[in-house]
Amino acid sequence: MIGGSIGKYLREQGIADEVVGVGRDHSRLALAQSLGAVDSFTTRFEEAIPRSRVVVICTPVDRIASDILRCEPFVHDDLLITDAGSTKFKIVDALSGHPALARHVVCAHPIAGSEKSGVEAARANLFARSLCVLTPTDSTPLELCDLARKFWSSVGCHVETMAPRVHDEVLAQMSHVPHVLAAALARSVPASSLPFGGGAFRDMTRVAAADPSLWTSILLQNREAVLQTLDLYLRNLDDFRRLLDSADSEDLNAWWHQAKAQRGLFERAHQQLSDQPKLHSAESLD
Amino acid sequence: MIGGSIGKYLREQGIADEVVGVGRDHSRLALAQSLGAVDSFTTRFEEAIPRSRVVVICTPVDRIASDILRCEPFVHDDLLITDAGSTKFKIVDALSGHPALARHVVCAHPIAGSEKSGVEAARANLFARSLCVLTPTDSTPLELCDLARKFWSSVGCHVETMAPRVHDEVLAQMSHVPHVLAAALARSVPASSLPFGGGAFRDMTRVAAADPSLWTSILLQNREAVLQTLDLYLRNLDDFRRLLDSADSEDLNAWWHQAKAQRGLFERAHQQLSDQPKLHSAESLD
Repeated sequence: MIGGSIGKYLREQGIADEVVGVGRDHSRLALAQSLGAVDSFTTRFEEAIPRSRVVVICTPVDRIASDILRCEPFVHDDLLITDAGSTKFKIVDALSGHPALARHVVCAHPIAGSEKSGVEAARANLFARSLCVLTPTDSTPLELCDLARKFWSSVGCHVETMAPRVHDEVLAQMSHVPHVLAAALARSVPASSLPFGGGAFRDMTRVAAADPSLWTSILLQNREAVLQTLDLYLRNLDDFRRLLDSADSEDLNAWWHQAKAQRGLFERAHQQLSDQPKLHSAESLD
Repeated sequence: MIGGSIGKYLREQGIADEVVGVGRDHSRLALAQSLGAVDSFTTRFEEAIPRSRVVVICTPVDRIASDILRCEPFVHDDLLITDAGSTKFKIVDALSGHPALARHVVCAHPIAGSEKSGVEAARANLFARSLCVLTPTDSTPLELCDLARKFWSSVGCHVETMAPRVHDEVLAQMSHVPHVLAAALARSVPASSLPFGGGAFRDMTRVAAADPSLWTSILLQNREAVLQTLDLYLRNLDDFRRLLDSADSEDLNAWWHQAKAQRGLFERAHQQLSDQPKLHSAESLD
């Protein structure tokens, strides 16, 4: 879905001369081509990487580092390698022993997606006005950072930069733990009650339908931050539990008011994001 | 929002001869009239109840029982009193000492709504194909049950019947605890992380924007079932925490698979609901 959405946008906007799909499964790649996500495709890294300016690794997080390492024999002066994984520290860390390769890498996380996966779910506007976090290191060349920023802006993202560990903490709070809570909620109710769920249950369990193996990888890659964030959440639920147990009407009301205020801040932050002019319009990367 | 939506639908479909808004605040009632939610309005119970066939109490759950009791001096043979509250046991229980009044009451919960409140948020199709749970008692006359079923069907609901305590348990699972989890999630993240939330965080905290005093009332009215359901949820999160802490990839995967399957069941249950033909089309209540 992520790789296909990038390909569709690049092709629609004429940003790249050619979008080449690289993968293991010929029939999935042929499907990507028939859906307009790639111009051509190959199952061979050695065919695609040498003639590419930008390589975007869109595999599950536990495969990204090894897929970047597979590019090592084919790097050339102008190459940018980036990715779209939901975790960053372990990936950046795995490259630290490969400085010549790492000079070509700016890891990235475009914060967009859904519970769906596969190129069938790709859409060109997936990244419109979403945030993309780049996690360059101290040794990443500035020109490469600029190219990465330009690339992710060109597919519609607002680009921010963070240290890999900070990214992983923030994403544990804003995405990884929320996914876990959705799954735990879906698991917590008896099947006989399901017809009586309304909009709240529907919205709150949507991402429980996400791919189990993708999410197992993400959670394992970001285990420490997820556990830490989960504990903070559990303390918040414990506070609530105590207030409800003692039927403390006034404090329950204040507890909820703080939640509502925080949700208001979230909405304002995202309103500002969509009011912001795009920094780069679609343009060639040269 | 609930009362206004019922009024709009009844008026649009010509189901009632007249929809009379009853409330405390003249200007809010005038607004309801200007928005097409009522034909006329009054702040005086004694003016509206004697000439009504159906009275729908749409006040917050902690006021419903006392508002039903205020109808007592004005009940007449044909009168149906119903409500739209999210909890049922305490309301039905409060009426048990008033058998002459209770003969006219069939409590109800149309499972529809949003985080918004007020007549400004009312819309005629709010109840389209949603479930409405009736909680009659052993002493509710059968004709009155039929009238209640006919009334809630006429505004677009599929009608089900439950014991009040069962209703409250099911709703704790499917609505009340999910609302608490949304609020706890909104409270758990630092404000600086909010711009980095995507669709999962957005959907999962939507209902945290609901009215704090309305929700404090609902949670206090259904305290026991909410605490019980919350404990079940916490056990599910504890299971997850243990699996992640021990980095048990296979069991994490199975844990998520069960969540995904349950979400699939939810979707199928609701698909069946919307495929089901409406039992009653819009019709007069006579």
